[in-house]
Order: sequence, then structure tokens, then C-alpha cells
Amino acid sequence: MNYRTEKDSLGEKQIPADSLSGIHTARALENFAGIGGDINPRLLKAYGFVKLACASVNHSLDYLDGKKFAAVEQACRELSDGILELPPSPAALQGGAGTSTNMYVNEVLANRALNILGLPCGKYDKISPLDDINLHQSTNDTYPTALKTAAIFASIELEQSVSELADSFQESERIFSEIIKLGRTQLQDAVPMTLGQSFGAWAEAFSKDRWRIYKCKERLRVINLGGTATGTGAGADRRFIFAASDELRKITGLPLARAENLVQATQNLDEIVEVSGILKALASNMFKIFSDIRLLSSGPEGGLGELQLPQKQAGSSVMPGKINPVIAEMVCQAGIDAIGKDSAITAAAMSGQLELNAFMPLIADNLLGMFDNLITASQLAKSMLAEGISADRDRCERNIHSSTAVITAFLPMFGYEKCSEIAEKASENGQTIKQYLIENGLCEERTYKAMTSPDAAAALGFRKRKD
Amino acid sequence: MNYRTEKDSLGEKQIPADSLSGIHTARALENFAGIGGDINPRLLKAYGFVKLACASVNHSLDYLDGKKFAAVEQACRELSDGILELPPSPAALQGGAGTSTNMYVNEVLANRALNILGLPCGKYDKISPLDDINLHQSTNDTYPTALKTAAIFASIELEQSVSELADSFQESERIFSEIIKLGRTQLQDAVPMTLGQSFGAWAEAFSKDRWRIYKCKERLRVINLGGTATGTGAGADRRFIFAASDELRKITGLPLARAENLVQATQNLDEIVEVSGILKALASNMFKIFSDIRLLSSGPEGGLGELQLPQKQAGSSVMPGKINPVIAEMVCQAGIDAIGKDSAITAAAMSGQLELNAFMPLIADNLLGMFDNLITASQLAKSMLAEGISADRDRCERNIHSSTAVITAFLPMFGYEKCSEIAEKASENGQTIKQYLIENGLCEERTYKAMTSPDAAAALGFRKRKD
Amino acid sequence: MNYRTEKDSLGEKQIPADSLSGIHTARALENFAGIGGDINPRLLKAYGFVKLACASVNHSLDYLDGKKFAAVEQACRELSDGILELPPSPAALQGGAGTSTNMYVNEVLANRALNILGLPCGKYDKISPLDDINLHQSTNDTYPTALKTAAIFASIELEQSVSELADSFQESERIFSEIIKLGRTQLQDAVPMTLGQSFGAWAEAFSKDRWRIYKCKERLRVINLGGTATGTGAGADRRFIFAASDELRKITGLPLARAENLVQATQNLDEIVEVSGILKALASNMFKIFSDIRLLSSGPEGGLGELQLPQKQAGSSVMPGKINPVIAEMVCQAGIDAIGKDSAITAAAMSGQLELNAFMPLIADNLLGMFDNLITASQLAKSMLAEGISADRDRCERNIHSSTAVITAFLPMFGYEKCSEIAEKASENGQTIKQYLIENGLCEERTYKAMTSPDAAAALGFRKRKD
Amino acid sequence: MNYRTEKDSLGEKQIPADSLSGIHTARALENFAGIGGDINPRLLKAYGFVKLACASVNHSLDYLDGKKFAAVEQACRELSDGILELPPSPAALQGGAGTSTNMYVNEVLANRALNILGLPCGKYDKISPLDDINLHQSTNDTYPTALKTAAIFASIELEQSVSELADSFQESERIFSEIIKLGRTQLQDAVPMTLGQSFGAWAEAFSKDRWRIYKCKERLRVINLGGTATGTGAGADRRFIFAASDELRKITGLPLARAENLVQATQNLDEIVEVSGILKALASNMFKIFSDIRLLSSGPEGGLGELQLPQKQAGSSVMPGKINPVIAEMVCQAGIDAIGKDSAITAAAMSGQLELNAFMPLIADNLLGMFDNLITASQLAKSMLAEGISADRDRCERNIHSSTAVITAFLPMFGYEKCSEIAEKASENGQTIKQYLIENGLCEERTYKAMTSPDAAAALGFRKRKD
Repeated sequence: MNYRTEKDSLGEKQIPADSLSGIHTARALENFAGIGGDINPRLLKAYGFVKLACASVNHSLDYLDGKKFAAVEQACRELSDGILELPPSPAALQGGAGTSTNMYVNEVLANRALNILGLPCGKYDKISPLDDINLHQSTNDTYPTALKTAAIFASIELEQSVSELADSFQESERIFSEIIKLGRTQLQDAVPMTLGQSFGAWAEAFSKDRWRIYKCKERLRVINLGGTATGTGAGADRRFIFAASDELRKITGLPLARAENLVQATQNLDEIVEVSGILKALASNMFKIFSDIRLLSSGPEGGLGELQLPQKQAGSSVMPGKINPVIAEMVCQAGIDAIGKDSAITAAAMSGQLELNAFMPLIADNLLGMFDNLITASQLAKSMLAEGISADRDRCERNIHSSTAVITAFLPMFGYEKCSEIAEKASENGQTIKQYLIENGLCEERTYKAMTSPDAAAALGFRKRKD
Repeated sequence: MNYRTEKDSLGEKQIPADSLSGIHTARALENFAGIGGDINPRLLKAYGFVKLACASVNHSLDYLDGKKFAAVEQACRELSDGILELPPSPAALQGGAGTSTNMYVNEVLANRALNILGLPCGKYDKISPLDDINLHQSTNDTYPTALKTAAIFASIELEQSVSELADSFQESERIFSEIIKLGRTQLQDAVPMTLGQSFGAWAEAFSKDRWRIYKCKERLRVINLGGTATGTGAGADRRFIFAASDELRKITGLPLARAENLVQATQNLDEIVEVSGILKALASNMFKIFSDIRLLSSGPEGGLGELQLPQKQAGSSVMPGKINPVIAEMVCQAGIDAIGKDSAITAAAMSGQLELNAFMPLIADNLLGMFDNLITASQLAKSMLAEGISADRDRCERNIHSSTAVITAFLPMFGYEKCSEIAEKASENGQTIKQYLIENGLCEERTYKAMTSPDAAAALGFRKRKD
Repeated sequence: MNYRTEKDSLGEKQIPADSLSGIHTARALENFAGIGGDINPRLLKAYGFVKLACASVNHSLDYLDGKKFAAVEQACRELSDGILELPPSPAALQGGAGTSTNMYVNEVLANRALNILGLPCGKYDKISPLDDINLHQSTNDTYPTALKTAAIFASIELEQSVSELADSFQESERIFSEIIKLGRTQLQDAVPMTLGQSFGAWAEAFSKDRWRIYKCKERLRVINLGGTATGTGAGADRRFIFAASDELRKITGLPLARAENLVQATQNLDEIVEVSGILKALASNMFKIFSDIRLLSSGPEGGLGELQLPQKQAGSSVMPGKINPVIAEMVCQAGIDAIGKDSAITAAAMSGQLELNAFMPLIADNLLGMFDNLITASQLAKSMLAEGISADRDRCERNIHSSTAVITAFLPMFGYEKCSEIAEKASENGQTIKQYLIENGLCEERTYKAMTSPDAAAALGFRKRKD
Repeated sequence: MNYRTEKDSLGEKQIPADSLSGIHTARALENFAGIGGDINPRLLKAYGFVKLACASVNHSLDYLDGKKFAAVEQACRELSDGILELPPSPAALQGGAGTSTNMYVNEVLANRALNILGLPCGKYDKISPLDDINLHQSTNDTYPTALKTAAIFASIELEQSVSELADSFQESERIFSEIIKLGRTQLQDAVPMTLGQSFGAWAEAFSKDRWRIYKCKERLRVINLGGTATGTGAGADRRFIFAASDELRKITGLPLARAENLVQATQNLDEIVEVSGILKALASNMFKIFSDIRLLSSGPEGGLGELQLPQKQAGSSVMPGKINPVIAEMVCQAGIDAIGKDSAITAAAMSGQLELNAFMPLIADNLLGMFDNLITASQLAKSMLAEGISADRDRCERNIHSSTAVITAFLPMFGYEKCSEIAEKASENGQTIKQYLIENGLCEERTYKAMTSPDAAAALGFRKRKD
């Protein structure tokens, strides 16, 4: 194999001649071999935009000539589009606050640009990873900027998929609006409601999530690009500092803005903690709601049995015909996974020191990983479960009518004391409420039906207190 | 001792004759003896407002006559004002989704109102805990409503104390703007900055927190009052449902609003998770920033020694004169405490089932406990630490001028390559950068001073690239 | 009010003349006003033992004369026995690594000993908080020692209460061994089992917990008493160092031992993290098992309804006769509470720096708080729930016999293919498995009964594969 | 492409003719596309052992003839050895409690065994994934068994790497035993100690971890193999149940044992929570100790500067010559990562329901991921950092001798009061303690040297109290 020689402040190293990455990547590959998986592709794509914005400003300030810029631009676009074939990247949990990722991107873009110009990899006197690609930048401003850019793009995807999941439940709300069922509090029979209301509640919960995720943009849009190492802009041309964020906004179409206080924006990660908390709110809704679905579809005989989920795969080699709620279980796990990642993000964010948080790579990996799993889980939740869900109307009705809880529908008619007495006596006699009411002439079948209709259940409160 | 007899669906119980609480409280005291401390006083005060709003609406709908209402109103106000002497309350981590707290409040208010009317405790045919105080209500709507009301009030206090802490740091930013110091990334000497910038960054971080806490109101303002057990309003007069939230808004002056979807609002707690996440963002800032302060004030000799904290108490019985940063340590612990409570809240919120989350008491206890500790910690942080902080200017200057990191101030003058060479040679010679520059005629003392002045450090980037 | 003047390295302060606490406590009360509750009484009691052990060794080394020692001993015993009326103590989340707690104890014991000798509080030339009570000690060795001592005592209580809970479930295992029920995996009907097996599994789980808690002693028994500030024993007589731990072992009867490496034992808290993890294992079992109990007792009609819990309090003002599983919910909350506290402990333990962890007070508060709640919850779980639990045998049998899952009992008889066919056809016909089998002459009622008997369900596997 | 047709209870599906995986895998790939990465290879390797043990017992019981068994055995060995080229596997966070992983393994082994026999994939009448490979088994017993087996193997690797890290620190303890340095508590100058003592403390901490990890085997060795779906062994030959665990013990050489109570062992995961807690104890030590190393190597000028780490990569493009402690930062991140994963494991373990925990896949992924990262991090910590660490002896000495904390070395000579006075006066005069002592004739240079020697610092306490 052919090699080229590269050099950094620690010395020289042989690099495969046609490798897009260089000496900094080579050292990082050795230093962090195998710790915590690969860099999230969302981060690398976003880095493509960041480097393009910087190159574009440097070009407009005459630091980068037109020919070089054209090549760099193409390389950046290929990275952002995910069409650049990438060499092995440093591990996700690298030390160095992301320096290795930044240098990897610098090296890959420089070498790819060189190739575009017909030059061999490593001709850094023509296009340099540091003096051209990284000009007026530092890891400490580009990395958080790329992370926020990636996170905003991911939030748009997530907003979409959560929105579609909410829509699907809303559709079910309509479809199931005529099914009366038992409302349960603390898992105990409580009051009548409609199955539509259950789905409506879930749709509404995810609508709130959608709104929160939509607002994540506002939390993430303030970036520290131009601040370089500590937010003072050391080493950066002042004109660059004032132009870079605007350029990135134009390129990405995202509402990005330069932080007023770049020093602050470089050292504190409370926005990440807040966004992680917002994703955790979604995660807790996901876990809660898909656990409800698992409960309501439990059985088929010896459980609640009110819902039927689409059958996705055989469930057991021992129990004939057993089908498990595998999609709901997967969604619940995505929820738990997010909760674990939020813990890690918080521990890392609070452990930052002075002018920089050294644990950015872990934070990036966990935040983007949260997005990945929540996006996938909400998409599959919709296509593999929500869209195919059906109700066992008989079971719903049997559950409510066999329960003394149905008596609550008659509170406005009989009052609490009388209702208590009816419930107690029916229980003693082994009768349903309906049987007891009719046999004792307390109401006719028609009235019973009306008082326990879906419409009655869905109506808010009672219209007039019984005198 | 004299006793009165009270009765519930499980049977009778003897209650001390003049006890403001009744049978439901008595059972709860037995059932949950000693689990997790007392109910947070913020919750009980807020419950006073909720019960007053409900009584007021019931009065306007003629369910409660004027005389009874006047007594109930006074009792509620006494509870909200914290001037009602309370009997022992059920434990904070009670089972029952808060039923025991609601019944405790119902009993206390009924009996106090009876006393106000000159009647003995227990005359429930005159004023009843259930039929009057709890009329048209359930634990499942009043408890979350009281919790949100309490949390908004607490958020206003917290916003105030965090704002004042930010102001104090901002004042320090001004005072320390002329002190040059070493900026450190990953704890390694990096670039010059001013001490004012450090304080400015902290002030800005807490300003962001202040803003987020201010916005908590929006997250908490939608309440499910009127929804009763499951959000269907079962057992409540429809006119009551439409009026109760408005009345509570008027009484508290808070921007409360009835949830459009009461079923949803009764069963999902994502807003609490989100607010807990917002408090956690503050907590992570607190931990990070007060750890920075501990670092910068480490020493006095063998540490960084750049800050001096007010001396609050003797630190050691072994080391003469040792003083510890006890306030900063307390603030850091309040941060960690909040992180633990956020974990508990999340686990509880995700574990809700169907129409209700049974773990509301734990959630309330942790959320209000977070507020308590963060309010106290931010107040003490300001009065006991931030206001009395001072700088060791000499140490700051010694640290930066003895470090090769000062060379970064000359990047625009000499460029990266030359700067590297200077740093390396100065290091080899055991010279400071200043000595090296002057002895080698690379700059005069005057220029050195100008290039490393606070103004130069605080300026954003450099004005022109060296040719 | 009368005052005495006390003095520390920061100056003088007026102290109420008859206050058992002194100037260090007074400063701490100001510095940490209201942060995080009171010091856990278990810690103060254990501190009584630690101080007694130290005084005893100092007495034997002639540092403390017999008369003084007798008074100090009595004061220590009163503290340990919980019979000493204590003045207000510094807040639980105090900064200073526990110095304020140690000084509070020193002051209280010195003043109480003075009183015992008939001398007024504050006569520190006779008995001094620092020179007598704290002699050869530091907060940094006494505080962790007191914490570990307190934790071991708590672990003995917890072991006892968990053991009794396991016993109670084991008793139920026996009682319910003849009840056949549905085993459910992923909440879906799976295979027959006995209700006794359910209780046996829970009993066994808590037996494992009991064993783990019993082993906590081994994790906590190594103490750093004698190490003073950093484990080097600075300021301590070497003979004291070698004798103090032995003396504490004798006094407490606990298997305590001096750490070989006192420097290590002073700075790292991995044992606390491990013990917290062990308590978290118990907490996760508690949450899981009492959630199972909530599930199995859900209904009464519209849930699984297989268990009936003792009725502890009225559950609803809307739904007549509703009773909630409040004890199980309380136990689940104790589990969640422990999980939150474990998070806080971990964050604090990992954040220790160099020779000491400054966050000991938070760690102590959370660890002992975990013990408190888990002890109370397991005691109440037994007395208020486990001992009074009963089964709905009919419902258990109905659930299993109406489910096609009962066919799994016939796998050894018919094989998987045939069983699948039977299940499918019975389902199509709306028949139970029993009906189908008998009507189609596949087995007689007697055989059906035998194959689905509790004994058959409880037998491990099948005896011979069908040919 | 050629296809074969496979069938399950949901219908038929076309499978690429030569694919080692079948219909169950195909469905799982659709159902869980892209959720949470790939199955951990450790789990698949361990599954190879489990399936081999089962096949072996089934062979000995005449359920599997010799020819088939030989092929299955080879396939299993290839899987365990990691030499079998595997088709795409279902996602790590799959729903179904691991059924898809089990079925993937069953299909791959059946098809590979068929190929070994010269038969095409899919000839399941010859060797069947279900009737041969999965015979007498269920996901619910094989999956946890494979997980525990994988975890024990991983624990052996981790024990080794942690042990070597401890050894490396122990070697440094010896090398640095003659360097005196400042001991710091709460980051404040405290007392003299040796640098060797610092390393000795770290070595000892990791030795405790090593011991705990060694004991993990005991926690994980009890397996539920043979219990099938719920621990009742439904569908399994009793002789198989009694033999399978023994066989797995023989094959793996691990001290595995069949659970006495298989029902319990199938439904509760407290051992996993405990082991996760043990790994978290290691993680907290890692974070704490490598944060200490980052602190002690901070600078080089403006920090503590007492340690020098091996230079692994260039640290900055702005600051010439800046080198960051990247390995220590990576290790700290591995610690945080473990803490996040522990949170996820706990949340999943507590959320198990009745006879099975549906979230086994998430638990397996996080537990094995913890092992992976902790193994890698501890290996890199040793080879890339610990072995190359050096001390700045001058800085260590300067830090201690310039601090008034050195006066604590003279406590036995002068007593506390006099030492306080000396420290105060030296401070006022701007003198070091040494200068003050000598200039005031309080001790000679020789005595100063002796009192502050490494030997004196390392000695435990003082030998005799000064009279």
C-alpha cells in the first residue's frame, strides 16, 4: 500500500495515500478505539453545512479563492447530502470535546476538495484542513453549532412523525366515538366513557408533544459560531464572526442566530438539557400511552381485551396462536431508552468546567440518539400499530355493563346515597346494575340505554342537579 | 378525651371531638404512617384557593347558601394564608392518588367552617366535607389543579430569586471587567479573557433560566378542574365545570385556563415532566457554575486562587485557618437533589395507567421539593456568596502572564506558526512569553501590555488579518 | 434572654445561654437556612456511638480524665438512645462535607456533658467541643463512619421487615397452592399456573433482597475512623488510630473494621453507590411486585379481578363503593422514591474531588432516606396488605378455563400441531377448550380436570413426550 | 434472485433462497426497522452456547439424532466463536421480549446446520428452527440465560482490565512514593501527603471494583433454562429441564446453576439491577478518579500542574502546543454513559409485569453495552494514560511548601493554637511557613525538611502528643 506522510505537533505518521482522513483522525482512531459506536450521521451531515457556511464567508472575505471554494463547497454538499463515502471515523465517545470529529471533517473535506481539483490527498499546501477548512474556527464553536443544526433538523422530522401519530389517534377517536367503555382510575372500575375519548386523550397528548418539539427550534437556534475556543473569537476575523451565523442560516434555511454572549454560549449547555427534557416528556407519554394500549389489549380472554392490535409476528413456540403486542413494547422501550439518555446528558452537562464542556461528544451522541429512536418509534407506532388498531365492542360493553361502576351514570338521576344503595344491593344479589334497576322498577330499559349511551358518557357533567 | 363518631363506607371510627380532621384522615394516618415526610405546605395553601373557587361557584349556583359560604370562604383563606393551625396530615407519599390529601383538606375546611359558625366539629349535616366542600369535585381534578397552582406560585418565587442571582453576577461582570485572566478549556490554559466575561457568562446563563422559569406558567396554566374522576365531569353540574377554572383564575390572579380536553388533562403528566426538565436545566447550570466558583476559588495557594469567597464558617479542626466554600457546595447539592427528584418524577409520570396517574402524591412532593430547594439555594447563593465575592487580581494576572497561553493574544500579530515557535522557545528557555518577546525585540513592553489588556481580550476576534 | 459569647476563627457571636449548641451551629443555621429538611435522626444517633468510641479511647490514652469521660459517655448514650432533647440542627443539605453536623454533635455533647457535671453550657475550658469531643478526629473520618454505622443499623431493620414480607407471601404461597390461574407473558394469556406459584415467586424475590441487604454489612463495615482530614491521620495520636475502630465495634456490636488504606477510604464512595444499587434492586422488585398486585386486583369487574386486597379507606366521592389499592400504590411510590434517591447519590458520588467528597451530606440524607422509606413501606406492605390478601378463586378459574391458553396443558397429550388446531377451532366455534375437547371426544371431563389441576400446573415440565 | 417460501401462523413470505435467516427474522426486520442499533455480538455468541447445551441434552434424550446433532453442534460453535457470517439481525430494541432474537438464532442455526449437511436453507423438515433448535425451550428461558452467560463472560474481561488498571496505578504508587504534595479537601489546601498515596488510593478503589466485578458471577449464575414460557417448564421434557443447566455449565466452564424457583427466575430482574449497580459503582469511581487526574494535570501553568499525561493528540488549532487530557475525558464519558444505561435498566426492570419482563431486549442492550464501554475504557485508560503518566515533582513541592497548609505537619510539634498563630503571621508577612519558622528560630531547615518529608507525610498520625 502507498503511504503519505503527515505531521502534527506530536510528530509524523504514515497515512494510506488515498485516505480522505489524515493524521489527526489516525491518532483519534488509536486513542479511542471501540468506545461507544460511530459518530451519529446527523452530526456529520450538519457539519457539512457548518463548514460550507464558514468557507463561504472566508471566500467572501478573500481568504479562500474562487477555485478552492468551489471545490470545498462541493465537498461540503456531498457530506451534507450523505453521498460522500466516508473513511472510518473516530469513536462517538471520544475525548477532546469533539476535536477529533472536527479534525476528521476538516481532513475529509480538504482531501475530498483536493480530489475534486484533481489533486492527490494530502496536498495540504493547496487546501489545508486547518488553514482553509477550519479557518477562523475552533472545535468549540463548530461542534456545538453542528450539533444544534443537526438537532433542529431532527426535531423537524420528529415533529412530523409525532404529528402523524397524533392524527392517526385522532382518526380513531372519531371511529370509536360510539363505543361505550369503562373508565378506570387506579386500575379500578370508575365511570363510563367512550373509547373515542381514550383515543382523543392520546391524540391530544401527542399534539402537546408535537407543539413542544416544534418549539425546540427556539431553544436550539442560538449558536456560538465565531466564538472559537472560548467565545472571545480569539483567532477569528471580526467580519467572519459577524457573518458566519447568517450564512449558516441562509444555507440551512433554519432560524439560526449568533449568541449575543458567545462566552456564555460556549460553556453552558442548559438548552441541551431543556431539549432533552422535552424529548423525555414525549418519551414518558409514549411509555404511558403504549402501556395503556398493552393493558387494553391484554388477554385476549384473561385480560381487559378491549382493543385488538394488528398481528405483526408469531409470539410463542409454546402457546399456540399467541400474538404479542411487539410494536407497543418496542415503543415503550424507545421511551425508556430516551429516559436513560436524558440521565447521561444531564450528568454530562452539569459536569462541564469553566470555559468548555469536555463531554460534548457524549452529549451529542445521546441527544441525536434520542431523536433517532423517538423518530423511528413514532413512525413504526403509527404505521405498524395505530393505523391497524381495532376495538372489541362487545368486550367494551360487557366490561362496563357488568360493573357496578355503571351506576355513576345515574348519579344525576338518583343522587349519591341512592346510587350507593343500588350498587350494594345489586352486588349482594349477584345482579348487574341494569337487572337491578329494571327488576325493581327504578328505570326502564330505554332509559337505562339512554343514560349509558356514548353521548351521555361524552357529555361534560350533568345538566341539572336532581332535586 | 372526648370523642365524636364518624362514619365512612368501611364503618365507624372514634375521632377526638375537637379535631379539625375526620375519619378519612384518621384512616390515612394509619395506612401511611411515616412514609416520606409531610405534605408540602405549598400544596395545602394552593388547595385553599381551589376549594374557595369551587365553593364560590357552588354558592353562585345556589348549592351553598350565603352563610355557609362565608364560613367556608374564611376557612379557605386561612388555609391559603398559612394561618390555620393544622392537625397532623397524611404522609406525603400516600397511596390513593391524593385522595387522602383532598379528604384532609375537605375535613379541615368543613370543621373550621363549622367552628366559625359556632358549631362543633363533626356537625357534617350543617357543613359536609363531601357534600359541601368537595361538591362537584374529585381528588382527580382538584389535586392536579392545586399542584399546578402551587407550582406556578413557586415558579414566581424562583424566577425572582434566580433573577436576583443573575443581577448580582451582572454587577460583578461590571466590577471585574478590568481584570485579565486565563480562559481554560478542558482545564488546560487556553486564551486570555476578562474575569468580567466569566461573570457575564454566568449571569447570562441564569438569565436564560429565569426566562425558562417565567415560561413555566404557560406549561402549567391549563388545569382539569371540573373534570372530576376521569375528565368526563361525572357528578358535576355542567355550569360548575364551565365556571370553576375562571373563578380560580380570578381568586389567584394566575393565568389559569380549563383544558379543552379534560380527559387528557386528567391522565397525562407530560407538562410536569417538562417543567421538571426546566428546573433540571437550572439545576445543571447551578451545579456547573458553582463548581466553577469552587474551582476558581480553590487554594488559596495550591489551587487556582483567582476568586475569594465570603468566609461563612470555620472549615477545619485540623488545618488552622482553613475556610471551605460551603455555600457553593450547598448550591451544588441543591442541583444534584433536583436531578434526583427529576428522575423520580419521570419514573412516576411514565408509570401512570389509563385514566389516572396513581402516583400524583410522589410527583407533587418531588416537584414542590425541587422548587423549595432551588428557591432557597438561589437566595442563599446570592446573599451569602455572590454579593460578597472578590477577585485576586494579582493571581489572575500571574496565572495568565506565566502561561504560554498568553501567546494567543498575538495570533493576529504574528500568525499561528510564529506564535507556536515563540511558545516553544520560551518554554525551553524557562522564560515567560513576555520576557521572550521583549528580550528578542519582538515587541515592546507597551505593546505587550496593549495586546494583553482587558479591552483587547474582551474584543470579539481580531480586526484585520496580518499580512 | 441570657446570652453567652462564643468565638471561632471568624469572630464572636452571642449564643442563648442555655443552648446546647454553640457558635458553629449558629453559623450553619444562618448559612443553610431551610435547605432540604432536617438531619436524619439515624445519623445523629450513630454519631453518638462514634463520639463515645473516640472519647473512650481518648480516656484510655489519658487524654480525658475519668470524670469528664463519665459525663461525655452519658451524653453520647443519650444521643444514641434518642432521649436527648436536641436543639435545632443545621439543614440536611449543608455545605462543608458534614462539618456542621459534626460540630453540632460536638457542641451538643460538650454542653450536655457540662450540664451533667453541673456546669453551665459554654464552659468549654472544662469540656471543649473541639479539644475534647472532637479530639483526634475530623469531620472527614467521623461523618462517613457515622453514616456507615447508621446505614448498617438501618440495613438490619430493613432486612427484618423484608424478611417478614417474604414470609407473609410464602404463607400465601401455601394457602393459594390449590388455585389454578392463568399465567400471562407480555400481558397475554399464556399457560396455566397456580396462584401459589405467583406468591412463591414474590416471596423468593424478596428473599433474594433480604440476602442482599444482609450482605450490605460487608460493604459498609470498613470505616475510615482515625484517618482525620485525608486519611493520613494528621493530628491524631497513632495509638488512637489503631484503637478507635475496635472500640466502635465493641460499642455497637457491629462488625466494623478500620480500612487498610485510610486515604482511599476517605475519598471514594463506591460502597455507598453499591449499597444504593442494592436498595434500588429491592425498590425495583417492590415496584414490580406491587404493580402486579395492583394488576391482579384490578376490577372488580372490568379488570383481572383475581386478587382482593384488604379495604383500607374509601376511594371515591363519585363512584359509590370504590376502593383503591392504596397500600400497593404507596409501596410503588416508595420504590420510585428510592430510584430517584439512587440517582442523586450516584451524581454526588461521582462528583467527589481529590481527597474528599464535599457532597457527603446529600449522600447521607438520600441513603438514610432510602432506608427509612423502604423499611416503612415493607412493614406497611406486610401488615396492611400482604397479611389480608385473598383470592377470587372463581375468577381465577374462569380466566384460565375461558382462555385458549389452557390448551398448553395438553401439549404433552396432543403435541403442538394438534393443540394449535384445537385452539383455532374452539375459537371459531366460540367454544371453550373444555367444551371443544369433550364434545369432540378428545378427552373426558375427568381427564380435562386432571390435566388442568393445580398439581399438573405446578409440576415441572412433562414426564414423557407423546409418541 | 431465488426465493424460498416460509410460513408462520400469520401466513407465508418469500425469503431469499440462500438466506440463513427465515420468516420470523424477516417479519422482525420489518417490524423494528432501525430502532436502536444491532444486537450486541456478546449476546449472539452466548446464545450459541445455550443452543448447543439444549441440543446436546436433546440428543442425549434421543430427540435429536447423531447426524443432526453433529451439524447443529458445529453451527453453534461457529456462532459462539464469532466465525459464522451472520445475516442482518433484528434491531436491538425489538419488542417481544427477545423472541425475534431467539427466532433469528434458531433460524440461522437450523439453516447453517442444513448447509453443513449439504442441504439447502429452508429444508426445515430435516432440521427445524422450532422443533429441533428450539426444542423444549422458549425465548423466556433461553434469552435471559444467554444474557447472563454473556454478562459473566464480559465480567471476566472487565475484571481483567480493571485489575490491570489497578496494577498500573499501584506501580505508580511505588514510583511516586517519594514525592510530597498537597492534600486537598473541598479543593482547599489541607495537609501534606505523598503523590504515591494518591495513586495508592486510586489503585485500591479499582481493586475494590475488581473484587465486586469478580463477585458478579455469583449474582448472575442462577439461570432459568428449562423454565420455558413462565418457569413452569410447560412444553419441556422434565429430564431436559434437569439436565440443561448442567450441560451449559460444562460447555461454558462457568459456574451456572438452575434456579430453584424457575417461576421467580423468569419474572424478576433484580440481579440485573444489582449488577448494573455494581458496574455503576465502577463507573462512578472511573469518573471521579479520572476527573482527579484531569484536575491534577490542569495547567500546565494556570492549573494545579502536578501530573503530566502522555500526549496523545494535538489539542487546538488556536492555542499553539495545547494538549488535552483526551483519554481521561473519554474514560469519564464511559462513566457517564454507564450511569445513563443504569437508569434505563432500572426503569425497564421495574416495569416488568406478571410472569415476564417484556423489556429484556433493552435491558440486554444496555447491560452488555455498559460492559463493552467499561472494558474498552479501562483498557485504554491503562495503555494510553496510566502507564505513561509522570509527575512534576517541583510543582508538587512548590504547591505544598508555598501553602500555609504545610503547618499541619507541625501540629504534633507546636499544637493547634501555636500553628494557627504561625500560619496567620506568615500570611500577614507574605512569608512561607518555612521562612517564618526558620527566621523566627522555631525550627531549623533540617527539622523542617524532616517534618515535611514524604515519610513523615505517609506515617499514620503522630507518635506522641506534645506536652
